[in-house]
Amino acid sequence: MLKLVRTFFLTLASLLLVTATSPALAADASMADYKYVLHISDMDPSKQDLILNNARNLLDAYPPGDVDVEIVAYGPGLRLLFADNVNAKRVESLAMSGVRFSACGNTLKGMTQQLGYAPKLNPAAKVVPGGIVRIGELVKQGYIYVRP
Amino acid sequence: MLKLVRTFFLTLASLLLVTATSPALAADASMADYKYVLHISDMDPSKQDLILNNARNLLDAYPPGDVDVEIVAYGPGLRLLFADNVNAKRVESLAMSGVRFSACGNTLKGMTQQLGYAPKLNPAAKVVPGGIVRIGELVKQGYIYVRP
Amino acid sequence: MLKLVRTFFLTLASLLLVTATSPALAADASMADYKYVLHISDMDPSKQDLILNNARNLLDAYPPGDVDVEIVAYGPGLRLLFADNVNAKRVESLAMSGVRFSACGNTLKGMTQQLGYAPKLNPAAKVVPGGIVRIGELVKQGYIYVRP
Repeated sequence: MLKLVRTFFLTLASLLLVTATSPALAADASMADYKYVLHISDMDPSKQDLILNNARNLLDAYPPGDVDVEIVAYGPGLRLLFADNVNAKRVESLAMSGVRFSACGNTLKGMTQQLGYAPKLNPAAKVVPGGIVRIGELVKQGYIYVRP
Repeated sequence: MLKLVRTFFLTLASLLLVTATSPALAADASMADYKYVLHISDMDPSKQDLILNNARNLLDAYPPGDVDVEIVAYGPGLRLLFADNVNAKRVESLAMSGVRFSACGNTLKGMTQQLGYAPKLNPAAKVVPGGIVRIGELVKQGYIYVRP
Repeated sequence: MLKLVRTFFLTLASLLLVTATSPALAADASMADYKYVLHISDMDPSKQDLILNNARNLLDAYPPGDVDVEIVAYGPGLRLLFADNVNAKRVESLAMSGVRFSACGNTLKGMTQQLGYAPKLNPAAKVVPGGIVRIGELVKQGYIYVRP
């Protein structure tokens, strides 16, 4: 019974988190010529370096305003967006250059239940209800999907 | 010489298997608004869990009938569709919720030759001639490609 | 100071390499019905086999001229296109069947700096400025993206 109550509050907490942070993504109908959605769901930490390099290379390859990059992280890949990730500074610096970072709310909910607390996310990350749903929306809007 | 004869019969067997099961996929011009093709070709068994979670999340994210999900498995990822896979029950349950599972005939042929017998597939799986060709057809039909 | 000079010349060398080899890719507006861009950026060598099998299966699945296949390699996946890779012969044989191989110039630059010399590439490989940018261009031209 106690466990049920705890689960209820954890779920409520993650739902509030999702509601609180997702409106920030509302106005993302990008006018850029090249729009990329980069996807990370791997356990392997070397993929975190690679996807950040990819985002950097995209920013460097096009004139400012011509490229739009969003990184969607879910599953084991969500760790990239943890506040204490080794790449946290690079994530923040890319965010300041305009890269968006979307954290999967479903994964967050699952991890919160497993850990017993909500993992602290990088302030650059925005929580979306579902990472895979977010990817689908972006592809429908003409984003180029790449999964490094 | 014996080996040649054996190879011939194994190849024949897999060809018959392909012919027998693929017509079931004929009528798949889906009318759903959101159509996803999820691809698995990884060795790593943790990917099997992840792709099934992804399919589940997609079904839960949209009203019934608005989403269409097909999982295409090839290479080492074909194991997800083996009858004795640890996730076999989840595969069947997702299939009952409308998720389609396509098993690559080329991979099956290769595995059959290596094993000396055709691996038993999950009854929810349909064999397609080639997994990568199937993905291409679906993308051409407007499916959103995601590779977890 | 010596290190700086060395880095300068290595960078210059890779830039020249990029300029020298990329024009070969200029005329690639393919008229094939099925155009695929296959992407490799994995460390795992088993992925090299898989992507070459995939290219082969695509060539075999369509009548000649109906399919166009380009493999884009970057990050740790660039190793597929090294001259001394175990799969070098298969790469060359697929190239003779019309498959194009694009090697990421950014990755090459980084590897050249790390190694202290430019790794020798398979003669079948063409260097493109950036692997991810190349993938984006191809997808914009209607290529089907698959990441084995």
